[in-house]
Amino acid sequence: MPSIPSAQYSLTVQVELDRKPGMLGRLTSAIGEAGGDIGALDIVKPGARVVREITIDTAGLDHAKQLLEAIEGVEGAELLSSSDRTFELHRGGKIFTGVTAPVTSHEQLSMAYTPGVARVCKAIAEDPEQAFEFTIKRNTVAIVSDGTAVLGLGDIGPEAAMPVMEGKAMLFKEFANVDAFPICLSTTDTDEIVAAVKAIAPTFGGINLEDISSPRCFEIERRLIEELDIPVFHDDQHGTAIVVLAALINACRLTGRRLDDLSVVMAGAGAAGVAVVKILLASGVSSIVACDRRGAIHSRREDYEDLNEVKRWLADKTNTDARDGSPADMLDGADLFVGLSGPGIIKPEDLARMNPDPFVFAMANPDPEVRPEEAAPYVAVMATGRSDYPNQINNVLAFPGIFRGALDARAHDITDEMKIAAARGIAAVVRDEELSAEYIIPSVFNRLVSELVAAAVAQEAEREGVAREEPEPAPVM
Amino acid sequence: MPSIPSAQYSLTVQVELDRKPGMLGRLTSAIGEAGGDIGALDIVKPGARVVREITIDTAGLDHAKQLLEAIEGVEGAELLSSSDRTFELHRGGKIFTGVTAPVTSHEQLSMAYTPGVARVCKAIAEDPEQAFEFTIKRNTVAIVSDGTAVLGLGDIGPEAAMPVMEGKAMLFKEFANVDAFPICLSTTDTDEIVAAVKAIAPTFGGINLEDISSPRCFEIERRLIEELDIPVFHDDQHGTAIVVLAALINACRLTGRRLDDLSVVMAGAGAAGVAVVKILLASGVSSIVACDRRGAIHSRREDYEDLNEVKRWLADKTNTDARDGSPADMLDGADLFVGLSGPGIIKPEDLARMNPDPFVFAMANPDPEVRPEEAAPYVAVMATGRSDYPNQINNVLAFPGIFRGALDARAHDITDEMKIAAARGIAAVVRDEELSAEYIIPSVFNRLVSELVAAAVAQEAEREGVAREEPEPAPVM
Repeated sequence: MPSIPSAQYSLTVQVELDRKPGMLGRLTSAIGEAGGDIGALDIVKPGARVVREITIDTAGLDHAKQLLEAIEGVEGAELLSSSDRTFELHRGGKIFTGVTAPVTSHEQLSMAYTPGVARVCKAIAEDPEQAFEFTIKRNTVAIVSDGTAVLGLGDIGPEAAMPVMEGKAMLFKEFANVDAFPICLSTTDTDEIVAAVKAIAPTFGGINLEDISSPRCFEIERRLIEELDIPVFHDDQHGTAIVVLAALINACRLTGRRLDDLSVVMAGAGAAGVAVVKILLASGVSSIVACDRRGAIHSRREDYEDLNEVKRWLADKTNTDARDGSPADMLDGADLFVGLSGPGIIKPEDLARMNPDPFVFAMANPDPEVRPEEAAPYVAVMATGRSDYPNQINNVLAFPGIFRGALDARAHDITDEMKIAAARGIAAVVRDEELSAEYIIPSVFNRLVSELVAAAVAQEAEREGVAREEPEPAPVM
Repeated sequence: MPSIPSAQYSLTVQVELDRKPGMLGRLTSAIGEAGGDIGALDIVKPGARVVREITIDTAGLDHAKQLLEAIEGVEGAELLSSSDRTFELHRGGKIFTGVTAPVTSHEQLSMAYTPGVARVCKAIAEDPEQAFEFTIKRNTVAIVSDGTAVLGLGDIGPEAAMPVMEGKAMLFKEFANVDAFPICLSTTDTDEIVAAVKAIAPTFGGINLEDISSPRCFEIERRLIEELDIPVFHDDQHGTAIVVLAALINACRLTGRRLDDLSVVMAGAGAAGVAVVKILLASGVSSIVACDRRGAIHSRREDYEDLNEVKRWLADKTNTDARDGSPADMLDGADLFVGLSGPGIIKPEDLARMNPDPFVFAMANPDPEVRPEEAAPYVAVMATGRSDYPNQINNVLAFPGIFRGALDARAHDITDEMKIAAARGIAAVVRDEELSAEYIIPSVFNRLVSELVAAAVAQEAEREGVAREEPEPAPVM
């Protein structure tokens, strides 16, 4: 629970007030004294006893209760109702099906539906690529989850995962005009997930896998990429990796270093960690040590035979000197620490053993591996996963533009090179004169991000030949 | 191809005209003489040489070509472009993902997505029924097809089926404010379809099966009804059956007859035919003879052992006298002929052998089993599947309101009684003073239809106990 009031714990209250001088002041003072932050303040019913609607940020559930009690304690004020703004925003779901044209006459019905639709169906039956011209496939992505690794909540099941997937659909739409639809699955079996996604694929132009636990997520993604002719992208892996690379490109740009000179230590060998290692290797970084809970991973570690497929890949590809130890132990002479683990695994003074002017990307949420305030004396560039510090590594910067670019190119796949192009696109949003240690990553609300990412991704798709040719014009009139 | 111009074959043309008196008149005359029906006529570029945009209904592809040639033949007119209005309406798909709130600030992001969304997820994880409160499940239906029995086109595959399913989603939205999403499947295997629909079910409040060929459609529907706790409804079966029953209720109301006195002959034992028989039996009709291509079906027919499960059900439940013969042979003494087969299987004079004032519902599309003009002398009430004759049996009258009612009740199922309630709801839209032989069924554009159907269906769901209780309020602030 955060200790300062925030929107996520905000209330809407309706309060009826006696007509007395200073009544509103007494109410707002009581709210302020109880630690609530007042946002909007409207009159919903004027009159002898005015009814006011007030939104109040609180610091959490207990604090909200205290605030309601404080309001009830104001003489001449009657609390009529209170509601939880976050729950109200989610009530009934956060997305809906919009229609591109009305259907209010037989004429419209005969074009949008039967009998006119039959000609469109026939054109697609003769050339299925026409689906990209005449159906939602052109612009629609499935957000597929089994609900097993949702936020920090773990395996909460498909129904409970829906609010996250709907939220993601909102972001796809708002940031890149991609129509996305959440599909939460009632199975956690790898084969069944692969079969279900293959079955529903004809509707979609891309598949965004989301919050599927490791290591199943790797096999599911690999098999779907092999078997489908539309892009399949596990955002928890690659979204984070792309934004880490974008941040790193700009950190190097700021400090005049090169990716292939860097020595990297990473804590956390989950889905995102593995993807970070992959994209760093593909971008020229050669010295990487990845650590899991048992310490640095390498091919001579005694549990090597017991490692899952993906960790074994890490053991084979990184830490070729087979160094042993904790993430903190590995920091000697490192240029970049990447944290995808949990709070407290690094002490600020450990950072003193890194190379001069090191980078620290401490992305554990909500509490980073090391606190920015404490790391500050030791680091040149600091990034976290939080929006209340500079340089937020947030995959909202990546996925909307990546799918926008892939859909625009009608790409079969999202290749490693397309991911790297996306990272370069994010990095390029920050202009030379803007670049600083506090600003290596653009804001998630900067609309330029998805535009540059989409353009870079689509161009790379063309260059690599994974873009589809436009189909021949349909045999229309 | 229709012989008269219609919107489904309409063109938009842009024509640049010389500035000469009577120029527009010459152009429109040429279009009229070539048999085109002009709709809208706009100026898109004024000036010395004005550019006009004209929409023209044509009678088909060949006719459209003739019209374009006629326009090119007008001296002083230059055809700049032409496009097919139906294809243009479908370009890029006909539905999109709408968002219920903007996400343009960290505050909004923190409520719609992380970190605020976690509280909503947790509330659903603790009580999955809260998904009906806080996700799109409350109002969202999947339109599932494998593309094997689309319109009259047959097995055209999932991509080619999409325009129909998107059109259906538009109708759900426009007529009943149901959010529907098309899911076209890349498999035609019964087990795989059942598995895929079960897998994706957590997202949805209902499943509308569509255009899945017989007899697989029966098993798929039966198994999904058994295994899912949300309504599953194969519209090709029950939508048609419900509207047939609605028409029949009003035909009886008009002529003072009772359902249980009727003798019925049906031609066509596909998915819709079987459903019609079921709903008629459930509504009190006892005398039914159903015919397939080999004639009247009964339990002593020599191919009885070879009949599929569903036809065998028909053989067991109908035609208990084991009458043999063609649909025309069966008409002696019948009160209602239901055609769900093809054109020409009944001659108008065959209808003379029916009981006095018979009903004929000839629903083969586009050419009915017997043409209304020819049947007129023999029948009291005639209905078809066409919008250009009175009494169109169109399942658009049924499915939007049925799912509206089922979703409103958060029903587990759509029972036979709920289907009958829907039929009564449709019939009730026609008031006593409106009821006539030409008006036993309301227009599909009458908004009262889905309202009455939804109310009747929801009420019946409550009565039968298939409605869900509202969950306890979520543990919000």
